[in-house]
Amino acid sequence: MSQPSKSPNVVWHEYKITREDREQLLNQKGCVLWFTGLPSSGKSTLANEVAHLLHQRGQLTYVLDGDNIRHGLNKDLGFSPEDREENIRRIGEVAKLFADAGVIALTAFVSPYRKDRDRARSLLEEGRFIEVYVNCPVQVCESRDPKGLYKKAKAGEIPEFTGISAPYEPPEKPEIEVRTDEMSVSEAAEMVIRYLEKQGIVPQVG
Amino acid sequence: MSQPSKSPNVVWHEYKITREDREQLLNQKGCVLWFTGLPSSGKSTLANEVAHLLHQRGQLTYVLDGDNIRHGLNKDLGFSPEDREENIRRIGEVAKLFADAGVIALTAFVSPYRKDRDRARSLLEEGRFIEVYVNCPVQVCESRDPKGLYKKAKAGEIPEFTGISAPYEPPEKPEIEVRTDEMSVSEAAEMVIRYLEKQGIVPQVG
Repeated sequence: MSQPSKSPNVVWHEYKITREDREQLLNQKGCVLWFTGLPSSGKSTLANEVAHLLHQRGQLTYVLDGDNIRHGLNKDLGFSPEDREENIRRIGEVAKLFADAGVIALTAFVSPYRKDRDRARSLLEEGRFIEVYVNCPVQVCESRDPKGLYKKAKAGEIPEFTGISAPYEPPEKPEIEVRTDEMSVSEAAEMVIRYLEKQGIVPQVG
Repeated sequence: MSQPSKSPNVVWHEYKITREDREQLLNQKGCVLWFTGLPSSGKSTLANEVAHLLHQRGQLTYVLDGDNIRHGLNKDLGFSPEDREENIRRIGEVAKLFADAGVIALTAFVSPYRKDRDRARSLLEEGRFIEVYVNCPVQVCESRDPKGLYKKAKAGEIPEFTGISAPYEPPEKPEIEVRTDEMSVSEAAEMVIRYLEKQGIVPQVG
């Protein structure tokens, strides 16, 4: 019914697949699970366990962490305050793209500053950014220290190390808070799964 | 069988879901379809049509284009040569993450320089980066010009406009080449789908 165009190519019909289309295909809602906490608090372990449990239920997840971000997208960034902020900004933007793709994106970064986390939150619709505070006393984190980072930080070899020589600002109203010194990774992961079921992000099972 | 650790938390078993796990779930191979060509050559239209056809077959796709990249992840970038290069670098890295997630990622950017496209290619395993040359004579692109960009470029309002005042380096060995002035968008999209079937990226249908 539209006016004929000078070029037949202009009238190519363009049908765009939407987030809702992809969500229907995947039987889930795209969202971001943002794990934040001190180094060695268990963010990455917990994120991977949640991804594991969700995968077993047929849900599609993707974990963004230092391994796939710092050596790729953000390899141009160092550890200055500006670069740390840009690091988290980009992670927030990429996580948003994954959520838009219908994927359950899990990010596992210290992300110590409230401002940076809130900016990542602001990119998503209400209910699609789920902050998971991985709470663990610094003494316990230090006793785990699988990569020896606390040891190095205390020896002054890592400047501005969160929990030792740089601040961590805990979330004020995280959607989920787990204490990894008081519960097992399975228990913590189950808490996250229950929340996702309750919010209708994934179907209830059993 | 490993030595007991000082902290019980260190021995948390960490099971990571792999790309292969996700590919099995999605019944497809994660890959990048990199559409390159002059402005108004039909990259975005074709990418969206391919995504549409794949979605109808139950495959998961995600289109990265100016709409979701320039206003988000790359909103800090302008149009200087360095920023254009960084723009394509980041798109390549994000597309790689999507492929790793098991998704068929489709990127629709002019990406005029061979060097930049080859860098994006180098991030992926053999066979997972599929360059689609959207070939169309500049005169035809100019006659389409849905956003009036060629008009502005010719009036000198857009400096370094690809095809007018900046070079476009066509791919030398693209996996797929389509002529959007000689075939319909459906025909071009079908060519891409046939290629994906042949390569085992998606199952054959019918």
